[in-house]
Amino acid sequence: METLKLEVITIGDELLSGNIIDTNSAMVAEKFLGLGFEVWQMTSIGDDPRRILEILHQVAARSQVAVVTGGLGPTQDDRTAQAAADAFGRKLELHEQSLRLIRERFDQLGIDMPLNNEKQAWLPEGSHVIPNPDGTAPGFVMEERGCLLLFFPGVPRELEHMLNDTALPLVAKRFGTGAHIVSRSLRIFGLTEAEIDQMVQGALKDITGMSLASLPRFPEIRLRVTARADGRESAMKMLDEAEKRLRKRLGAWVYGVDGDELESVVEDLMREVGKTVSVAESCTGGLIAHRLTNVPGSSEVFDRGFITYSPLAKEEVLGVPSAVLAKHGPVSAAAAKAMAAGARVRAGTSLGLAVTGVAGPGGGAVGRPVGTVFMGLAEGSQCWSQRFYFQGGRWKIKTLATTVALDWLRRYLVGENPANYPTPWRGGRK
Amino acid sequence: METLKLEVITIGDELLSGNIIDTNSAMVAEKFLGLGFEVWQMTSIGDDPRRILEILHQVAARSQVAVVTGGLGPTQDDRTAQAAADAFGRKLELHEQSLRLIRERFDQLGIDMPLNNEKQAWLPEGSHVIPNPDGTAPGFVMEERGCLLLFFPGVPRELEHMLNDTALPLVAKRFGTGAHIVSRSLRIFGLTEAEIDQMVQGALKDITGMSLASLPRFPEIRLRVTARADGRESAMKMLDEAEKRLRKRLGAWVYGVDGDELESVVEDLMREVGKTVSVAESCTGGLIAHRLTNVPGSSEVFDRGFITYSPLAKEEVLGVPSAVLAKHGPVSAAAAKAMAAGARVRAGTSLGLAVTGVAGPGGGAVGRPVGTVFMGLAEGSQCWSQRFYFQGGRWKIKTLATTVALDWLRRYLVGENPANYPTPWRGGRK
Repeated sequence: METLKLEVITIGDELLSGNIIDTNSAMVAEKFLGLGFEVWQMTSIGDDPRRILEILHQVAARSQVAVVTGGLGPTQDDRTAQAAADAFGRKLELHEQSLRLIRERFDQLGIDMPLNNEKQAWLPEGSHVIPNPDGTAPGFVMEERGCLLLFFPGVPRELEHMLNDTALPLVAKRFGTGAHIVSRSLRIFGLTEAEIDQMVQGALKDITGMSLASLPRFPEIRLRVTARADGRESAMKMLDEAEKRLRKRLGAWVYGVDGDELESVVEDLMREVGKTVSVAESCTGGLIAHRLTNVPGSSEVFDRGFITYSPLAKEEVLGVPSAVLAKHGPVSAAAAKAMAAGARVRAGTSLGLAVTGVAGPGGGAVGRPVGTVFMGLAEGSQCWSQRFYFQGGRWKIKTLATTVALDWLRRYLVGENPANYPTPWRGGRK
Repeated sequence: METLKLEVITIGDELLSGNIIDTNSAMVAEKFLGLGFEVWQMTSIGDDPRRILEILHQVAARSQVAVVTGGLGPTQDDRTAQAAADAFGRKLELHEQSLRLIRERFDQLGIDMPLNNEKQAWLPEGSHVIPNPDGTAPGFVMEERGCLLLFFPGVPRELEHMLNDTALPLVAKRFGTGAHIVSRSLRIFGLTEAEIDQMVQGALKDITGMSLASLPRFPEIRLRVTARADGRESAMKMLDEAEKRLRKRLGAWVYGVDGDELESVVEDLMREVGKTVSVAESCTGGLIAHRLTNVPGSSEVFDRGFITYSPLAKEEVLGVPSAVLAKHGPVSAAAAKAMAAGARVRAGTSLGLAVTGVAGPGGGAVGRPVGTVFMGLAEGSQCWSQRFYFQGGRWKIKTLATTVALDWLRRYLVGENPANYPTPWRGGRK
């Protein structure tokens, strides 16, 4: 199949002032790659009608699809719709249904629609509407000189929903000659791209219309599989088959798919078996609890957390014996175990998870350099510990230690032996 | 002064795949705005010599400065230097001093320089080097058709240092007719842009060469003041005078300048007066502790934190009387006070800070909707509470509640009455 050219144009003075970082372009690119498009250029310009007109002419002449975001708001500064109409000799016309939807949105909020907002329902004549379930500005599509131009509001969440719900299926239909293209990302923690590559090699070679891409997003990697078929149902079947085969190769390295976050996967696993957890944190300083409580409904499985920075806090709050601290120090396997057990008993939860280490930049010592972290896991009368070594600054060490702790807990919940947690950070300093 | 046009060009296949979000463009824009530049366009393209050549021609024809990042690495994929030379009929020549610096960098790491890296010292003839203190790829500057073209590696940290150390002074000198331009940002939490605008109006009107810009970065606003003068010393004096006047207008709304984070400001204040703090968190779920422990050396002022999600946890861990919970509920002024006092006593710190509320999406009730948050602050036998109402999703409520809690503590430490904390979120639901 011929490669199709896509361009992304983001519009807004706030982008050019450096006030806002453009995340829309990357999101659009990632989604269209799965449809077989090659991104040719990403361009950010201000809310200037002449610049908008100019760039739309350029793009229509050289690319098959343009995704344009921003400048569809209700104020006079928002000029994208007018400029798009002008660029191709069209007029704006009132789209009655969109106006009705905008009015309804304000009605639901119990306020009168400001007059300004009517402007958002005036779209270039002959364009098709892309509904916006999350905001007042509808998007629209027009075709000029063989180029499909898609316009969206600049709010990332609104853009994402409109892409998924309407725009991507529409583009797939228009350019895929009836082909349906669907994709799914397997979320993997603890392997490098090269390792994943090697492990999945050849797994899908007998299925035509499949492609694989790995996308690193610290601290994890997403392995995206894309299926292309004549019908949606057969494309989905191909995806399911591919996921089955990839999971067979990758096993428990895959912790979830698509929007699954590690913390929500862990909480779902606990909910399934009716377990609860408490955490005892030293060097992660509350980040594990913060991530666990980011999940709506976390109170069903997470009851309390203890952040114990000093040795005295570990002793007083968690009941770590002073003899353990004196003999092994607060950064040790024995301390991590005692912290986990102490948290579990004091909180009355089924599980206790503990982390103690040196996040730096200070506090390192011979045999226990910055980045050394011990973790403990307790259930019933059993208790395990693991030693890790992480490289990097304070932020990186906190992030990695937190992710490893949650992943260790996940693997325990799916039945792995917690004494054999297989990540590359295991062990002492290399 | 005439407005000068700047363009930013970011080069790299990884940008077009959506794999990496471009933060360089916003960083460059923000820095050059302070120098009086207007950003005309930001463009991302792949590592394709023809595309690079094309865009350099366009930019040289319409703008005064081009900042180009990416494509200076050691591999064959990195083609920016060659394309820049080709675009303007130049040759690449070996820059001996840069080669020496690259060699030295590898020597320091104790490894031989790979042959590939010699490539990084081949620069377009007639260009000037921009030293890179953090990496192997030097940058370079060339002037063509009245346009100053600056080339940098794509690594954000390297780019930032090279801009600050060499490129910005060079550009200021080239276009500012010898003027020195310096800027400083006041960090402000709790006011809107419009309020700040009104409060500082006219404050700097009798000083020529000063400019003000407000940059919102949720949840705070940065007020950047820029001074332009003949010498660096007089520019710095102007900045100091401006800061003095703005602080007089804004008072304690300013919590810091430039790189000061709210949590490090709070910890510095505690260190000055020899105080320590413990936290009791319900709806913020560990985020306050996480932010406090992000600061290196936080163990001097922060000893422990308690995350108590359930009413029982508040009772058992913090000693909140069951009568208080029964009468007022766990989301109440009385509970917040008892949590703060309990944390303080149990941890043996001078201060106790507590947050309890409804982060949603579930858990709301009549008179206590999602977003209702109570905070408590305790010192000695004294105890205060405040009621807040935050709008937004779970993430936004956690972030705002955490920032308000830290800011409330900061204002207490500088001598304000904690019963009169003046943020707009104070009070019940409107």
